[in-house]
Amino acid sequence: MNKKETKHINLQEIKDPKFLGELTYKELDVLSEDISKYIIDVTSKNGGHLSSNLGVIDATIALCRVFDFSKDKIVFDVGHQCYTYKILTGRSLERLRQKDGVSGFQRMSESRYDHFESGHSSTSISVISGMAIARDLKKEKYDTIAFIGDASIANGLAFEGINVSSANNHKMIIVLNDNDMSISKPVGAIARMFRKFSTSNLYRKSKKAYRKIMNLTWIGRKIYAFTALIKNWFKRHVIKINIFDAIGGYSFIGPVDGHNIKALEKAFKRSKRTDKSTIVMIKTIKGKGYKYAEDDEKGEWHGVGKFDVETGDSVPSSRIYWSTVYSDFIYNKIKEDKKSVLIVPATELGSNLNQTFKDFPEQCIDVGIAEEHAVTMAAGLAANGIHPIISIYSTFMQRAYDQIIHDVVRTHQAATFIIDRSGLVGNDGSTHQGIFDESFLLGMPDNVIAMPANVKQAKCIFEESFKHQLPFFIRCPREKIFIDKTNNEVVGFGKWKKIYDGNEIAIVSIGPETEILKDLIKGKGVALYNAIYLRPMDEVCINELLKYKKVIIYDAYGVESGFAYHLNAKLTKLGYKGDIIIKAVPNEFIHHSSLLEQKTDLGLLPEQIVELIK
Amino acid sequence: MNKKETKHINLQEIKDPKFLGELTYKELDVLSEDISKYIIDVTSKNGGHLSSNLGVIDATIALCRVFDFSKDKIVFDVGHQCYTYKILTGRSLERLRQKDGVSGFQRMSESRYDHFESGHSSTSISVISGMAIARDLKKEKYDTIAFIGDASIANGLAFEGINVSSANNHKMIIVLNDNDMSISKPVGAIARMFRKFSTSNLYRKSKKAYRKIMNLTWIGRKIYAFTALIKNWFKRHVIKINIFDAIGGYSFIGPVDGHNIKALEKAFKRSKRTDKSTIVMIKTIKGKGYKYAEDDEKGEWHGVGKFDVETGDSVPSSRIYWSTVYSDFIYNKIKEDKKSVLIVPATELGSNLNQTFKDFPEQCIDVGIAEEHAVTMAAGLAANGIHPIISIYSTFMQRAYDQIIHDVVRTHQAATFIIDRSGLVGNDGSTHQGIFDESFLLGMPDNVIAMPANVKQAKCIFEESFKHQLPFFIRCPREKIFIDKTNNEVVGFGKWKKIYDGNEIAIVSIGPETEILKDLIKGKGVALYNAIYLRPMDEVCINELLKYKKVIIYDAYGVESGFAYHLNAKLTKLGYKGDIIIKAVPNEFIHHSSLLEQKTDLGLLPEQIVELIK
Repeated sequence: MNKKETKHINLQEIKDPKFLGELTYKELDVLSEDISKYIIDVTSKNGGHLSSNLGVIDATIALCRVFDFSKDKIVFDVGHQCYTYKILTGRSLERLRQKDGVSGFQRMSESRYDHFESGHSSTSISVISGMAIARDLKKEKYDTIAFIGDASIANGLAFEGINVSSANNHKMIIVLNDNDMSISKPVGAIARMFRKFSTSNLYRKSKKAYRKIMNLTWIGRKIYAFTALIKNWFKRHVIKINIFDAIGGYSFIGPVDGHNIKALEKAFKRSKRTDKSTIVMIKTIKGKGYKYAEDDEKGEWHGVGKFDVETGDSVPSSRIYWSTVYSDFIYNKIKEDKKSVLIVPATELGSNLNQTFKDFPEQCIDVGIAEEHAVTMAAGLAANGIHPIISIYSTFMQRAYDQIIHDVVRTHQAATFIIDRSGLVGNDGSTHQGIFDESFLLGMPDNVIAMPANVKQAKCIFEESFKHQLPFFIRCPREKIFIDKTNNEVVGFGKWKKIYDGNEIAIVSIGPETEILKDLIKGKGVALYNAIYLRPMDEVCINELLKYKKVIIYDAYGVESGFAYHLNAKLTKLGYKGDIIIKAVPNEFIHHSSLLEQKTDLGLLPEQIVELIK
Repeated sequence: MNKKETKHINLQEIKDPKFLGELTYKELDVLSEDISKYIIDVTSKNGGHLSSNLGVIDATIALCRVFDFSKDKIVFDVGHQCYTYKILTGRSLERLRQKDGVSGFQRMSESRYDHFESGHSSTSISVISGMAIARDLKKEKYDTIAFIGDASIANGLAFEGINVSSANNHKMIIVLNDNDMSISKPVGAIARMFRKFSTSNLYRKSKKAYRKIMNLTWIGRKIYAFTALIKNWFKRHVIKINIFDAIGGYSFIGPVDGHNIKALEKAFKRSKRTDKSTIVMIKTIKGKGYKYAEDDEKGEWHGVGKFDVETGDSVPSSRIYWSTVYSDFIYNKIKEDKKSVLIVPATELGSNLNQTFKDFPEQCIDVGIAEEHAVTMAAGLAANGIHPIISIYSTFMQRAYDQIIHDVVRTHQAATFIIDRSGLVGNDGSTHQGIFDESFLLGMPDNVIAMPANVKQAKCIFEESFKHQLPFFIRCPREKIFIDKTNNEVVGFGKWKKIYDGNEIAIVSIGPETEILKDLIKGKGVALYNAIYLRPMDEVCINELLKYKKVIIYDAYGVESGFAYHLNAKLTKLGYKGDIIIKAVPNEFIHHSSLLEQKTDLGLLPEQIVELIK
């Protein structure tokens, strides 16, 4: 049977993974290729996570052949590498990440095959450990499996999961996907361990050559046998010193070639048979089958927007992202101020900071997916006279709530947080929304929170953050810049900007949408204030508000309980008796659709605010 | 020189640790004993952390002799074991944890010898790593040292600190204090590793005997030499497989007898000489020198209230703590409902749950100081049909903000959180206040938050939490119960309780202080509502509020931006035009003093509310 004759499966017609059992390994390889093409095609149109998904097609096929996920439970860590799983469990990716399509992550409401869901990394081990305990309490029989990558496992939560679970007898299986990349290069001891495994792959190859030569003569065979004996002893007692052995409590299988379905099946079957919790380590090639993604050293093909499949070029745009604005500020600061340090938790590329890392390695630290350490280490730097700049996504900053309040804010450290992807984020959906930081930061004492509306303001606030013995939190939206025609704008510390005086209605507006709104309501007799600092608030401006019959608090970037409730309470305290109308993101989980759709659905476009004042 | 002649140092006259260099080891031992007696005396009067402080007296003395903490930096992890350090750096413990006295933790504002401060565990490694990077950037010369216990190191943040720092060349010293106890028994692989070290202590003793016998004959000596060779090889290559070796990047010294000042000095000096980051493991006896504390297997002498030094009895009290109320509920639930599981992060004893653990070990899980894992594992249990009860202190729950919102709340898991020590906590001070959870939980969507005012309500809400597919957060104050003369009270889901109708003023009150206030304002014509559920709020009651001229929102248990701002916004939205007065904890860090002093200073006693309405 040559390749032409091999049966192609129509991916759109798959209902569940049962058909996999009937395919030959050759047919499975064809299926794997077809899925690969389909994923490249779909993400080129909708954006999404590409490299990680291409890397785990074969492993997902093997898992679905060995396990029955109508009863066995699987949790994909982070969840963004589950596209193949979605296809094999009967979900179309045609409208991936679109309002009416499937989510880019596992999602319980989508399929009975999704037993849990996530979007943040390193939760899977704790989840399946809980599932395993529940199973044993209920005296049920099935496997619970975590599928986790090499960067995610170097996180504190994953460590806690491995460490605590090693002490119990509730069997679980951890598939550890070593692709030597993760979002960008993983950091630290764990990463070194994985590199050690890679080296031993080379070792295996040279070993093969050695065996060939030795087997040519009798004496060679004898020497080979003896050295093999020694080597095996070493292998058992010396080479295998990895962190999992040190932790103990787990069987360890692998590393297995993550693109050999037969070998994967064998390893998974072994892990299924044993009674002990098992770690199966597989080695995959991130971006497998798509040249640009395979060659990608930096992680540029991790999460992608629309792109051209042939050329690998992303669909051009004339506008730049806000994160680029801040990455320029940061670059210059790090260059000029040798007492400043940049810290990122695996978001060097995501926040456009690669050039800074390249040019000033001494002052740049990527801690990997270790948000808690990033923040507490920053506190240590600040306490010792170095000004840390922490660039972090809003949604991931949630993981460092306690480190922020306990280590940075409570001790009044001078630090600059650039909160990337603040506000609604669009297609990544509910796990990634950056809408909560405003509320939880305002719930803490003694910090400074600002959200500039334009680049000049941003520059000014960024510089200001280095002049105070206070932590500054500067919110950077996941938006492109629409307008930047302002003159050189100087923003005093804690000051708002009065744009218009008005008659009866005043709007207090936050962030870049203010610039749009400004043009829309020009000459309409409506007062407009741009609340640049969310804390401290501008008392002068707030006192001016008291004279208006109606105050509209417009915040398209955070939940109501953030800036809106705080200003509301302030107005109440000052005895304001007019009407207060809040237009902010409701305290809800907002699911995937485009950023524009999300804002429209919530009535948060500047145009919709204009409607409101009519 | 016999003991009688040995010089005693007047502890009250110590200005800084320099005098230590002039003492002989005998004199140091006397000093150690004197400090021990003093700490026992002071904590018996003021309460505080006893066992941990008694265990580290000798190590602190040795550290202060080897290092110069006017330039070297030391961070005591958690910080509650720094009493000796405070004494040696010239601070009196007479008013320990009292309003005008020293804090129970390191505190930068107290002394130039405190280079950082904490109250939550496992931050120290990240902090000194930041300090070391800062030092090297500034080209300065000194050591940065973390002093951390065996339970704290099994936490995710500590792991991230060790893992990430292993990849850099910024030298730091980690003194790992193995007292085989920590708050209660540590959990997991890390704990097993420490037990292994203990075993190897036994091994060392038998080794000594073996050497003696072998040295009696010539052949014995030869065999001994040969076996020693083998053994050393083993020791280098096999025995030393501990997690720190696996992680790599660190020199490892120890274990060292933590009560032998000379041996400790030697080890610390070695760690100082080397250029590589070093882990010095010391073995100490928790509670050393105080019989009751030494014999304590359960951690009852970890944090103590006032007690009688002779008998070890705590000063009797006729009232019980709120946590005891919940521990009874939990006991009965776990007993009756085999599909429920109790999870605690090292707070089994602190929250009075030891009996439940003893009687129902299958359904009780202490994960150690791993709050994140506790919550995400709970999500896994809930997703698989087991109802988790998570008992956790408010201040420590901050560490699981993201796990709560991302894994439990967003996925609508049915779970019961008992938030112990909600509200002001008194003498533990700013790191331990439980005043922020209300605000950050209300900032999340779709959860249920309640704070009962009396035991009957508490019982009712606790039971209710098992009837919904929602996470319930029930706040339990660090207070004793004053009054419980209510009849069997039934609280509907999301309902408030109208206690009095009134004329012009309505008070909305939260938590147990409501019961006091009720008696104080009886017959005064003031309306009183008990807001039992903070979310969902009782719309009927809120609509009734609209008719009053003045609404006082009284919350002695959370910051203003919690319940108060949320109700304020709700009233505003309904068009309420009367006055709203908020009496809640300000969004500030509240430092150590008694609970009564804290409430009084903030004007939050029921008596002070009565003053307000006059």
